[in-house]
Amino acid sequence: MPVKLVSNRYGKSRVRLMRVTRHEQHHDLDEWTVQVLLTGDFDTAHTLGDNAKILPTDTMKNTVYHVARESKATSMEDYAKELIDFLLGRNPQAESVEVVVESTLWKRLTVDGQPYPTAFMRGSDERQTTTVSRQQGQAFAITSGLERLTVLKTAQSGFMGFIKDSLTTLPETSDRLFGTAVKAEWPYTKAAIEAGIDFNKVRSHLRDILITTFAKHDSLSVQQTLYAMAEGALHHTDIIDEVYMLMPNKHNLLVDLGRFGQENPNHIFVPTDEPHGTIEATVRRV
Amino acid sequence: MPVKLVSNRYGKSRVRLMRVTRHEQHHDLDEWTVQVLLTGDFDTAHTLGDNAKILPTDTMKNTVYHVARESKATSMEDYAKELIDFLLGRNPQAESVEVVVESTLWKRLTVDGQPYPTAFMRGSDERQTTTVSRQQGQAFAITSGLERLTVLKTAQSGFMGFIKDSLTTLPETSDRLFGTAVKAEWPYTKAAIEAGIDFNKVRSHLRDILITTFAKHDSLSVQQTLYAMAEGALHHTDIIDEVYMLMPNKHNLLVDLGRFGQENPNHIFVPTDEPHGTIEATVRRV
Amino acid sequence: MPVKLVSNRYGKSRVRLMRVTRHEQHHDLDEWTVQVLLTGDFDTAHTLGDNAKILPTDTMKNTVYHVARESKATSMEDYAKELIDFLLGRNPQAESVEVVVESTLWKRLTVDGQPYPTAFMRGSDERQTTTVSRQQGQAFAITSGLERLTVLKTAQSGFMGFIKDSLTTLPETSDRLFGTAVKAEWPYTKAAIEAGIDFNKVRSHLRDILITTFAKHDSLSVQQTLYAMAEGALHHTDIIDEVYMLMPNKHNLLVDLGRFGQENPNHIFVPTDEPHGTIEATVRRV
Amino acid sequence: MPVKLVSNRYGKSRVRLMRVTRHEQHHDLDEWTVQVLLTGDFDTAHTLGDNAKILPTDTMKNTVYHVARESKATSMEDYAKELIDFLLGRNPQAESVEVVVESTLWKRLTVDGQPYPTAFMRGSDERQTTTVSRQQGQAFAITSGLERLTVLKTAQSGFMGFIKDSLTTLPETSDRLFGTAVKAEWPYTKAAIEAGIDFNKVRSHLRDILITTFAKHDSLSVQQTLYAMAEGALHHTDIIDEVYMLMPNKHNLLVDLGRFGQENPNHIFVPTDEPHGTIEATVRRV
Repeated sequence: MPVKLVSNRYGKSRVRLMRVTRHEQHHDLDEWTVQVLLTGDFDTAHTLGDNAKILPTDTMKNTVYHVARESKATSMEDYAKELIDFLLGRNPQAESVEVVVESTLWKRLTVDGQPYPTAFMRGSDERQTTTVSRQQGQAFAITSGLERLTVLKTAQSGFMGFIKDSLTTLPETSDRLFGTAVKAEWPYTKAAIEAGIDFNKVRSHLRDILITTFAKHDSLSVQQTLYAMAEGALHHTDIIDEVYMLMPNKHNLLVDLGRFGQENPNHIFVPTDEPHGTIEATVRRV
Repeated sequence: MPVKLVSNRYGKSRVRLMRVTRHEQHHDLDEWTVQVLLTGDFDTAHTLGDNAKILPTDTMKNTVYHVARESKATSMEDYAKELIDFLLGRNPQAESVEVVVESTLWKRLTVDGQPYPTAFMRGSDERQTTTVSRQQGQAFAITSGLERLTVLKTAQSGFMGFIKDSLTTLPETSDRLFGTAVKAEWPYTKAAIEAGIDFNKVRSHLRDILITTFAKHDSLSVQQTLYAMAEGALHHTDIIDEVYMLMPNKHNLLVDLGRFGQENPNHIFVPTDEPHGTIEATVRRV
Repeated sequence: MPVKLVSNRYGKSRVRLMRVTRHEQHHDLDEWTVQVLLTGDFDTAHTLGDNAKILPTDTMKNTVYHVARESKATSMEDYAKELIDFLLGRNPQAESVEVVVESTLWKRLTVDGQPYPTAFMRGSDERQTTTVSRQQGQAFAITSGLERLTVLKTAQSGFMGFIKDSLTTLPETSDRLFGTAVKAEWPYTKAAIEAGIDFNKVRSHLRDILITTFAKHDSLSVQQTLYAMAEGALHHTDIIDEVYMLMPNKHNLLVDLGRFGQENPNHIFVPTDEPHGTIEATVRRV
Repeated sequence: MPVKLVSNRYGKSRVRLMRVTRHEQHHDLDEWTVQVLLTGDFDTAHTLGDNAKILPTDTMKNTVYHVARESKATSMEDYAKELIDFLLGRNPQAESVEVVVESTLWKRLTVDGQPYPTAFMRGSDERQTTTVSRQQGQAFAITSGLERLTVLKTAQSGFMGFIKDSLTTLPETSDRLFGTAVKAEWPYTKAAIEAGIDFNKVRSHLRDILITTFAKHDSLSVQQTLYAMAEGALHHTDIIDEVYMLMPNKHNLLVDLGRFGQENPNHIFVPTDEPHGTIEATVRRV
């Protein structure tokens, strides 16, 4: 009954990096959490404990900081590309390298009505993300996105016309709260990656479209709004051809105040974390 | 070897409330997490299991929603006062009631450059807080504050002249990152509570002073900046006489890149969650 | 520039269930967190907001409880099968249903040296997991496993012979702490699923093998120990042909006490959460 | 409007320590999280930024490890005493030092039916705690306890005879699930501290009594069971005179299956995290 290794991957996760870029008149701040994963010819490490081809994950961590110091990249996508090429170049035993970066929001403080050059405030839990990978001798694949973009609309949302059966207890409604934490991911086209694009600018535009569509949409369901948001993103630019979206339905339950002789015309709700709806879809240009 | 109950308290925690206030042209949104605690003559509940004087915590939860529906309060402090008086009035066996409210940040979405009337985005983890309490027949005590206001300055911060001994490894520095998550609490004076104040407005002003002082201060230590922030708050208004502040020193460690032949002039840091410094103080008007 | 829906899925997550099974002389306790996901013909829900084929996720939640009440299943795998067949039978518009169940550890309390029939203590954060899915008219696919099984060995672990380059700072060691949080997943073979197996018994045996191998292994690397654990599982039984394993290397850093004139022969360490190594592999019978 | 510093305290928090004690035939493992706080004459640090009397919190962290390496203490209480005396001795400017230690559960692995000498498994989220403090020239004060001891009983628990009013919706019940996460703290008497006691043994006994009482008690309310547990602890030993207990009522809600034509005789529940009851009391020997 012999067994064999059919796939494997290893690396370093949760490598945290705070970068201060010191301009003449002000500083910029980036907080990134980096993951590096290698695939390759590591069979004997598993079967024999032979570490001759193993780059220690501790060295990967050092590499994250070393490359960050040299890098002139302003986007995490461009930084990830540099990190990958550095690792591929020094590690021929690695078939491919994948780097995932999450960026934490920091906003410049406003003091006396002016942006303060060297002080910052932590923003929301929203994360900007990118997954960049490359096989030896091949082109980069880059998928960027965002997650935990937590939004809520108090109008223009209903849910009606659904299946009713013996286990239905949900009433139909033409007016409900619609809260979600958007996760979106868009692979860039090969052409866009080759051409070289301003990843920060694209991300900012796509984020605006997602938010704007969410706010304005006359929503008949989470599915419909999710689709409209993805469609909006694809209509915006041809440097992406596909969007994956995940939007939990984070329920706010209307409190039954009739038991106490009170009306409750969508005024008082209980926000809940669990259970929640889960809605996901991938939308592609045809 | 008899024993006795020397103190006791009970109530309901983590009662979550989402309130939508529907104006003609726009909605307002409040998310509050409420705790209600009663002290009083509950000895026989403990010693005999006699529940005759016990208001169930489930009823307290219902009361939170019932009072919220009736309330016209725009601040959580004023809402807490109504909730307390409702409970004290119906429960003479309660000697005192304490209500703690935490408010979660939601910001109105900007769409096409304009505030959108009915869509919101979750803000940072910062919480606005208040603790309001009243004994039967006495005046209210109200302490408000904020916590998890996470800020970082990349200039105007050093730490020098401290004690060196055989266990010292920290180098002196005239230029370091200074990151913290501010917690502040200020009791309102009796006079201010009696006079009736706009709690939301006061809170907003005090928060601005804390942030402004943090940004502008030439910091020789966390202690000095903390004191300056508290002093700034007390100088702003005489409706508070005291401020308690807690400011962890959330360290960003300079990466030693000299090992790799690189300089690192305060450019690349490792942000850390643990361990962290803990600095707290209470400052009072004399 | 038309777009289309290329894939979609929706359902309910974090549906929590506590089940008390009341025997004559004692109770049994199960705490499960259930996720239900449907795929199928839901295009018009996305493109038109037509909910005619949408089973509300609220109804899925009700179904979780309804089926649990009727069920005689003792394993979560068998319960998941019943839940899936219930949903497939009533929802022809669903092409397939996937149910994920996580089980939380509760242990019976020992009182006066005896197991107490009706009192329990929460165990560790370890979760037992299963993912069960079925397409209309096809056989079940069942993958079970565990995660967050947090273990640490203080002997029989080294890491040597790895690549050294200009960014290496990790010293070689023949004696280190090896801590990890094991995640393992094993699909059951079609034959085993058809034959009907005792899922709880199999899980318990496989878990024992993983733990035993971890403890006894003379580890030259995380990779080698991970492989040995997977191999041990596959050698144990032919009702599985494949094991996926994920084992972060949760580092304990030796404190440098030489700075203070002290030796530290692997006695005092700093446990860390980040960064951590990430090692994963799939091992299959050939 | 001058202001002054009325109280202050500073130190280091979340200093994590893993200690391996290497015996001939087996190892022991302790994981402690330590907090050190100093009070003293630190006014000018706040008002002037004068750090001449400031022991850096980084040095406190080093001290935690330095003293741990020298220490022969088997309990965290005895270790904390050593740490405090080390700091008081070297820092006359400190009026008092407080050390808080939390211990994480690790259990030895059982392999082939035998305890394995050098492998361990992480236990539950329960924490063993101690707070030890000393003023210069005074005796130690030591309060130990535990928290997050999560238990649940499925019988011998009811809640009846409580106040009913217009906001009551909770039904009376003679049979409910009673789940809680026990927090308990007991100060040791001066006599016990002077005499020198085996802190680990006492803690283990008191924990057993709390658990046993919880399981066996015919509970008419959380209050009554909490009181019985505290009373049991005080009856066990005269080296404590007082116990503080906090026991949230972590609700499991009976699912209303009558809507679907099913009975639910305390079989299927929804476990919830929020809201929860909060019950706390201090019981003292008279």
